[in-house]
Amino acid sequence: MADRPNNDRFLRALQRQPTDTTPVWIMRQAGRYLPEYRATRKRAGSFLTLAKTPELACEVTLQPVERFDLDAAIVFSDILTIPDAMGLGLYFVEGEGPKFRNPLRTAEAIKALAVPDPESELRYVTDAVRLARHELDGKVPLIGFSGSPWTLACYMVEGQGSRDFARLKALSLDQPALTHHLLDVNARAVIAYLTAQVAAGAQALMVFDTWGGLLAPSAFREFSQRYLQQIAKALQHNPLTANIPLILFSKGAGAHLEGLADSGCAALGLDWTIDIGDARRRVGERVALQGNLDPATLQASPTALRQEVTAVIDAFGPHPGHVFNLGHGITPNIDLENVAVLVDAVHSHGRHIRQLD
Amino acid sequence: MADRPNNDRFLRALQRQPTDTTPVWIMRQAGRYLPEYRATRKRAGSFLTLAKTPELACEVTLQPVERFDLDAAIVFSDILTIPDAMGLGLYFVEGEGPKFRNPLRTAEAIKALAVPDPESELRYVTDAVRLARHELDGKVPLIGFSGSPWTLACYMVEGQGSRDFARLKALSLDQPALTHHLLDVNARAVIAYLTAQVAAGAQALMVFDTWGGLLAPSAFREFSQRYLQQIAKALQHNPLTANIPLILFSKGAGAHLEGLADSGCAALGLDWTIDIGDARRRVGERVALQGNLDPATLQASPTALRQEVTAVIDAFGPHPGHVFNLGHGITPNIDLENVAVLVDAVHSHGRHIRQLD
Repeated sequence: MADRPNNDRFLRALQRQPTDTTPVWIMRQAGRYLPEYRATRKRAGSFLTLAKTPELACEVTLQPVERFDLDAAIVFSDILTIPDAMGLGLYFVEGEGPKFRNPLRTAEAIKALAVPDPESELRYVTDAVRLARHELDGKVPLIGFSGSPWTLACYMVEGQGSRDFARLKALSLDQPALTHHLLDVNARAVIAYLTAQVAAGAQALMVFDTWGGLLAPSAFREFSQRYLQQIAKALQHNPLTANIPLILFSKGAGAHLEGLADSGCAALGLDWTIDIGDARRRVGERVALQGNLDPATLQASPTALRQEVTAVIDAFGPHPGHVFNLGHGITPNIDLENVAVLVDAVHSHGRHIRQLD
Repeated sequence: MADRPNNDRFLRALQRQPTDTTPVWIMRQAGRYLPEYRATRKRAGSFLTLAKTPELACEVTLQPVERFDLDAAIVFSDILTIPDAMGLGLYFVEGEGPKFRNPLRTAEAIKALAVPDPESELRYVTDAVRLARHELDGKVPLIGFSGSPWTLACYMVEGQGSRDFARLKALSLDQPALTHHLLDVNARAVIAYLTAQVAAGAQALMVFDTWGGLLAPSAFREFSQRYLQQIAKALQHNPLTANIPLILFSKGAGAHLEGLADSGCAALGLDWTIDIGDARRRVGERVALQGNLDPATLQASPTALRQEVTAVIDAFGPHPGHVFNLGHGITPNIDLENVAVLVDAVHSHGRHIRQLD
């Protein structure tokens, strides 16, 4: 590829090609644990202003790759941009997480939903992608992302975060056709949105199915996995996105790896509650795997942290196809020095295990 | 057994003996969704007064079995009574969950912990068990319970609830010997506590490992499962408790069923993220299974609720050894009528599936 970045470990690993060492990036790497992020966030005034101002979103996208030897950048944004563009009115209350002014509470509201045009209604995201891709100047690849259809629907129906998102679950039981309509609109919106991010310069894509794991197995297959497959297939069949690796991350869905691996994605993200070696044996050569250190490990000593990083890399083994990451987003309350330790431990042990092989 | 209760479906199912239908009880069945509970709770003045006054605890223990055709009662108490008896000072802030005045923040504090004598320091629990057993008068069996060593330690070290209990995880990585000391004290305390509940009249026991599922697999085996095994073995080797069925419930630990089934317990509790038919195939004839309807299903219509109950019973099949339950505690915001629907659906479909067999 003409525009392959200088450091292509991440993209090669997603394609299960050999690399000199294990690539690493960190979910939420542009975030509150970084003092420079907090400074930009303060300048922006609010989280949404930060996310909706392409220059500022680009700035925080670059911060972690400037400070640490990470192998990928991910555009700074929120998983709920799509429902916001659909008119639900995303807002944030400090310490309470995302909320919607107009949650979906009637069949009419659900039937009235339309797929937003990303290049107009989500322009701030595609502009941030264009800017970040330009500013990265080939240093590392840039990841675009979206929330999954199910996860978007959780917030759209509940109107805010929840332990169990029981409103959407009850809807899915009582009005399955209406629920499928909602999820299909979301899936088509995600496809258009991810495609626009690729057109703007994203070199890999990730779908965060944060709440898929709250579903019972048959409900997961029917209401979450099915729409992840719809997305993967659509991206595969579009020449623009066919060669862009897609990572699916269903948190808490370790029981569903086989089904997800057959979706047509390039890689699966794993949370930390599954052994990555077992996961690799289960999915075989079908997909690459991304993960899966317990984020709480960053609160331990550097010595213990190095041991745990080593254990994850050893569990995967010296095969191609591992992107190191945490099993969930990095938390704000960690020692910055430990992030450098983590990145160094991945790269040095990743080299070591390949030399032994 | 001379003192076998009139309705022994629950105990027979735990021993994988045939029953006329599937027995059912509901985690948190004595709780806020019941108006009579809220009335008693109001009279008590505080949750802790309610839990620590045997007459009141007995009263709310009986309320659900008086209103619904449930097949077991569970003594009303809290999972954190043991650390409270160790001197950590349990208290509750409305809407914030349990907290400790004296969380464990030093090695000295951990080394100073001692196993409480249940008959003096947790007398309010054994008195509640004695009273409830007497008042039930053989109507249904009475379950005693405790939090698991790991779950107790989560709160003891963190001092309150947490998304990730990272303090204890970091301690387990940085000071494994000290962590094992803490967990061993907790395990011995749980054994003494459960044994005292049996001496007071409990006819089955359950250990709630609410936060075991937050652990990575090897950490789960080392820091949670190991101590569940210690408890199961100790109870098996004591003539007083050897014939009392023990249910282990590790929420989010569907990947660990085989290891837990080998612990010496009678049954495993399952959350709703695993198919109970798959679980049965995995554990075979080793243990009974309890579960596992998604609690959110109680927020759907009676028609959908009946279908979902039926699906869980069908997934287990017509074999002996199924105790129906939710996959987690019942939530306050449900229609009481749906609880009656659930119980009726279990009993009627449980009969039906046995007739087909």
